[in-house]
Amino acid sequence: MKQIKGIVFDLYGTLYDVHSVAELCSQHAPGRGLEISLLWRQKQLEYTWLRSLMGQYISFEQGTGDALVYVSNHLKLDLSARTRAELCDEYLKLKPYPEVPAALETLQALGLPLAILSNGSAHSIHSVVGNSGLEHRFAHLISVDAVRIFKPHTTVYELAEKHLGLHRSEIMFVSSNAWDASGAHHFGFQVSWINRSGNTFEELGARPDHVLSGLDELPDIVRPASTEQ
Amino acid sequence: MKQIKGIVFDLYGTLYDVHSVAELCSQHAPGRGLEISLLWRQKQLEYTWLRSLMGQYISFEQGTGDALVYVSNHLKLDLSARTRAELCDEYLKLKPYPEVPAALETLQALGLPLAILSNGSAHSIHSVVGNSGLEHRFAHLISVDAVRIFKPHTTVYELAEKHLGLHRSEIMFVSSNAWDASGAHHFGFQVSWINRSGNTFEELGARPDHVLSGLDELPDIVRPASTEQ
Repeated sequence: MKQIKGIVFDLYGTLYDVHSVAELCSQHAPGRGLEISLLWRQKQLEYTWLRSLMGQYISFEQGTGDALVYVSNHLKLDLSARTRAELCDEYLKLKPYPEVPAALETLQALGLPLAILSNGSAHSIHSVVGNSGLEHRFAHLISVDAVRIFKPHTTVYELAEKHLGLHRSEIMFVSSNAWDASGAHHFGFQVSWINRSGNTFEELGARPDHVLSGLDELPDIVRPASTEQ
Repeated sequence: MKQIKGIVFDLYGTLYDVHSVAELCSQHAPGRGLEISLLWRQKQLEYTWLRSLMGQYISFEQGTGDALVYVSNHLKLDLSARTRAELCDEYLKLKPYPEVPAALETLQALGLPLAILSNGSAHSIHSVVGNSGLEHRFAHLISVDAVRIFKPHTTVYELAEKHLGLHRSEIMFVSSNAWDASGAHHFGFQVSWINRSGNTFEELGARPDHVLSGLDELPDIVRPASTEQ
């Protein structure tokens, strides 16, 4: 394994909890917040994959809105356009997982450049990161919007190499999404899969180099030899 | 709308019921056949989309086997390799939906060439169609295996134009899978979505030209003007 010279994080579900929208969902459909949030996330992802394959890219935010229309129809929720817009806005205010702020501080102190590589638009990434007060931790906030295709297409992972000026083998890619971790490993990154809640890894022909139960375990893995304590 | 000169069918879930494997699944995990079958199908599809995007094509049959490994792990079923092979073999013996044999006979009598365009390998398509005794209904059995990428990638739909020697606007594409119907519509086929069980159409920026509750409604839609009764 090559020495790690930079760290690239997935955003949705990895640093930030996408199911923090469940609370607002439950205000519109009492008792069904998590059900809505889970199906919404599933469809959001499917739409990124399907539109990428069809060559019909739209922004992640538009796809998120479309996914909520599906959820509203499928679960017979009859959500108004105004309610759907309000719920989509929640995606700009996602909460980081509890251990994330301190772990990022530790990682930044190691002197490694930190970056986010996300399916979200630049506006969304900046909003989410800014709203949580963590913008100063990152050297690069990278959106797929520049290449108009979503993860796990190779073109997206190449963006990280370009922005960091590093070879893929020198980059630690960190994701909680097993399909993303698989794509990143096929691409050639070193990969840490964050598995906070006992999920099952996907069978896509790749395995992560490291499996962590939280971001607080990452510093020990990427710490340069010269700073080992 | 141009006159229809050929009909192209999706196989899995459209002509043949993928959940006819549920019965055998329930022999290995009593009471859980449909749960297994539904998750297996979901993962099978996800793996075709994800591997296509990653540029990591494997055959549909290998992906189906991988998806069953995931299901076994995720649901803690502990299925042996032998049991998994037996379950995968069931995919070669799927049953057609009840109205399909008679509807194909009627369609064939209209003089339109009928074709299947499927994610499955040529071997699988021939097995499924042969086992159900319907091979003589089809002029073309077309597998994605020739182009090593799965639906809804444009390259796959192009195969149908090539094999039938028709322009996309002259082809009626028939699928029960809303994402497939969406991809086919973006491509430029005329599209019939078979919705047998009150499913919700996907929000992928396209709508089918026709929504049918079974294949028996198709002859009236594609009947050439000269043979109208």
